[in-house]
Amino acid sequence: MAKKAPRRTAERILQTTRQLFNRFGEPNVSTTLISAELSISPGNLYYHFPAKDELVNALFAEYLQKLQPILSAAPHVSDVEEAWFFMHTLFELVWDYRFLYRDLGDLLSRNRKMEHDIKDVLLLKTSAFKALLQGLGHAGQLHIQTSTREMSATQMVVMLTWWLSFEYARDPRHALEDQNAQEALFRGAQHVLGLLLPFLEEPSKSHLSRLIESYSQATTNSA
Amino acid sequence: MAKKAPRRTAERILQTTRQLFNRFGEPNVSTTLISAELSISPGNLYYHFPAKDELVNALFAEYLQKLQPILSAAPHVSDVEEAWFFMHTLFELVWDYRFLYRDLGDLLSRNRKMEHDIKDVLLLKTSAFKALLQGLGHAGQLHIQTSTREMSATQMVVMLTWWLSFEYARDPRHALEDQNAQEALFRGAQHVLGLLLPFLEEPSKSHLSRLIESYSQATTNSA
Repeated sequence: MAKKAPRRTAERILQTTRQLFNRFGEPNVSTTLISAELSISPGNLYYHFPAKDELVNALFAEYLQKLQPILSAAPHVSDVEEAWFFMHTLFELVWDYRFLYRDLGDLLSRNRKMEHDIKDVLLLKTSAFKALLQGLGHAGQLHIQTSTREMSATQMVVMLTWWLSFEYARDPRHALEDQNAQEALFRGAQHVLGLLLPFLEEPSKSHLSRLIESYSQATTNSA
Repeated sequence: MAKKAPRRTAERILQTTRQLFNRFGEPNVSTTLISAELSISPGNLYYHFPAKDELVNALFAEYLQKLQPILSAAPHVSDVEEAWFFMHTLFELVWDYRFLYRDLGDLLSRNRKMEHDIKDVLLLKTSAFKALLQGLGHAGQLHIQTSTREMSATQMVVMLTWWLSFEYARDPRHALEDQNAQEALFRGAQHVLGLLLPFLEEPSKSHLSRLIESYSQATTNSA
């Protein structure tokens, strides 16, 4: 078998590491486990990523790179259907990198780069949600006072960022397993978008209510 | 000097442990540090609490014992001023046990008792917020549909439980220090109570808006 190119190996390492971090939590995954799962030598892993922190940083950079184009769509969201789609896309990304969210406080306290970069992520998200609220306002879908907009955007950021922590706290053994993805993401999107509900004008308000309700009936373990 | 009674020593151990956990994060505090801070021997600490988990469990039990009487006041909240006071009392308790909130996911994954008990805490909080919404509704202060009430109570729980994680992520080196208590608690209470804002009837709505606004102006580092 031909030797794999370094770039290809690095990608494979990151993908497997992300899956292991997501499944067991970053603090519980050692570089030994990662190399064993990949069937590569610890030396080979070390050649690509000389420390576990560099794996965390590379995955965080990947996440950021995928986050930006999603958030940049926020100002163009002009109705409830688009807002629903936007929020689901965002939650799917959060799910793919859920290890970041499960142990965020712990990661921050141990990793200087993340400590620095997470502030930008929170600001990016806040700006995107403010733009979403403003866009829906301009489209005549929503009425919100400027003074309330800042607070609502912050509430949306907290709900988006810690929703999976809530799911995890309610059921640590199953919440973050793959088979729960669909329900967890739907409940998350529902609760973030639910923050818009009281500010929406008709018929958008009824439309979002119906989307939320039809979903609630479809899930067995509703929040 | 007379020898201190065992109960007195256990209390002193718990108080110091809580302060150290709050200051440095539970994962970063060893039993060696705790006994050094108390100027007692590791053996003496071991006599009272044979493992670090037992310190965590005892502090969590303390927290629960203080949480219940606060939450039981929820159904009797009948206006905006009382809701403001209720939420501040709640956030003061959260602040006193903030180590639980900074590393909740990590603590849950390592401690079976917390893994079990946190579910009850989340349910207790959700019930209390539903009762708060219902009480304000009965008092004619607020109008919210029954179907929305469940979702709003859940949003309030997430906001209350993870607000300090948000403060921590924005500024890990200072957010949870004592001198930031007042501002962090005010911002937290503001964002949880802000969830009620769109459902309030006048004049309560304007009243809460003014409370929130007067506070925003008074703080330098508003969210």
